[in-house]
Amino acid sequence: MANFYKPEDLINRLNSIANSLASKPDSLALIGLGSAGLEINRLDQYSDLDFFVIVRKDKKQNYLSNLSWLEADQSLVFKFMNTVDGFKALYADGIFLEFAVFEEWELKKIPYSSGRVVWAHPDFDLEFANPQIKLPEQKQPPIEWSVNEALAICYIGINRYLRGEKLSAFRFVQIYAVDRVMELAKYLEKDTLDSFDPFSNERRFEKRFPQTAKILPDLMTGYENTPDAVLAILNFLDENFDVNEPLKNLIKNLVFSSKKDS
Amino acid sequence: MANFYKPEDLINRLNSIANSLASKPDSLALIGLGSAGLEINRLDQYSDLDFFVIVRKDKKQNYLSNLSWLEADQSLVFKFMNTVDGFKALYADGIFLEFAVFEEWELKKIPYSSGRVVWAHPDFDLEFANPQIKLPEQKQPPIEWSVNEALAICYIGINRYLRGEKLSAFRFVQIYAVDRVMELAKYLEKDTLDSFDPFSNERRFEKRFPQTAKILPDLMTGYENTPDAVLAILNFLDENFDVNEPLKNLIKNLVFSSKKDS
Repeated sequence: MANFYKPEDLINRLNSIANSLASKPDSLALIGLGSAGLEINRLDQYSDLDFFVIVRKDKKQNYLSNLSWLEADQSLVFKFMNTVDGFKALYADGIFLEFAVFEEWELKKIPYSSGRVVWAHPDFDLEFANPQIKLPEQKQPPIEWSVNEALAICYIGINRYLRGEKLSAFRFVQIYAVDRVMELAKYLEKDTLDSFDPFSNERRFEKRFPQTAKILPDLMTGYENTPDAVLAILNFLDENFDVNEPLKNLIKNLVFSSKKDS
Repeated sequence: MANFYKPEDLINRLNSIANSLASKPDSLALIGLGSAGLEINRLDQYSDLDFFVIVRKDKKQNYLSNLSWLEADQSLVFKFMNTVDGFKALYADGIFLEFAVFEEWELKKIPYSSGRVVWAHPDFDLEFANPQIKLPEQKQPPIEWSVNEALAICYIGINRYLRGEKLSAFRFVQIYAVDRVMELAKYLEKDTLDSFDPFSNERRFEKRFPQTAKILPDLMTGYENTPDAVLAILNFLDENFDVNEPLKNLIKNLVFSSKKDS
């Protein structure tokens, strides 16, 4: 099955929320984000609805304290205020929401990606569909930095593993060293989508870098198997870049000793 | 084998670096951090040497551009400037270093954990062994927040998995939902060490929360097996806390559909 709804059900629900907002005097706009926004071509049966509701000054708390404006069509079976600005919520039919409510002036001080105006009152300044402050820039460190940092992380990670700190080892190797592999992928193949997400570089990685993505299962081997992930990262580095031999050999020895111990 | 050195070799090396610094006119102090610092009782054969070198005004670049002050005893076989302030480096005998060089005034504006003064010139203000600005505080969200956020993350993660975004799914479930499990551990058992590390809550988790640690292997199952991790997180939440039934059931259905697809 997967989810019970189809992409058009998601769009209909968003429009229905827009209609409900339009009938309330204090609403100014509904701005769709992500696949509910400008990237609507990516909307699929695994998407949720991510949006901002913009309301008049001093009205935000009304919208947050009573969610009836969301329940014109369907009732919510799960609602969870996950930030001071918004909720995650689930409709009875399985449609999942992530939304925040802002007053117009608040948009001047928060970073967000450009959205799609699903509905707006004539009083709403359409400029606010775009962020008013700069997003974090995509930083691309030099090759040598990513390679050496990956090596150093593997060294620290395998030592923590040997000490029995397997959670810390997992995170060093299978997250932070993998971050470095993701940085290095750009030197080995062209980003097929050129769709970098400033809030999470890992989004759509498999589509953007299909060659490098092939080794991902070997780099994320789970809590007990960090030494195998270390070896796979060393192999990736060694096959594609200049790698410091003494440190590489030291790490390999530590990996082998971890296997003898177990 | 593991590493080639013993804990006392680490201490001897740190003292030797201190002696080398003491012979240079512009050095002010060597401050050991972590297990090279105040937690020296934790120093073991898997430790590296983590320290700050404090130098006189306008002398920092001299120490960073020429590392001969580190090589009085042993030569370095790997040196990597990983930040604008410092290096990671490896000695020929396998001892690994992480260090930064600061001028005294810089310590006023950076957060760090209290260190141990290994050596200091009489001109050095010993107050600087302790951070001059406050460390990030340990935030403990309410139980309901951690439980609901874990559920929501599992929902988003399993959908990304089903879409083929397995890297993003891995990170949502096996990192961010696991962060919530780590927060919740405190409600189930007492922190045996009470040794929270403000820079990484995962350090020594296995020793601090041995009961919760037993399920960690089931929560971090690797890139291909995120659905199993989702089920294990749901079980953990369900056994110990109040869990929203409709969202839990929806997530379980999505997990089962992921297994039918494969």
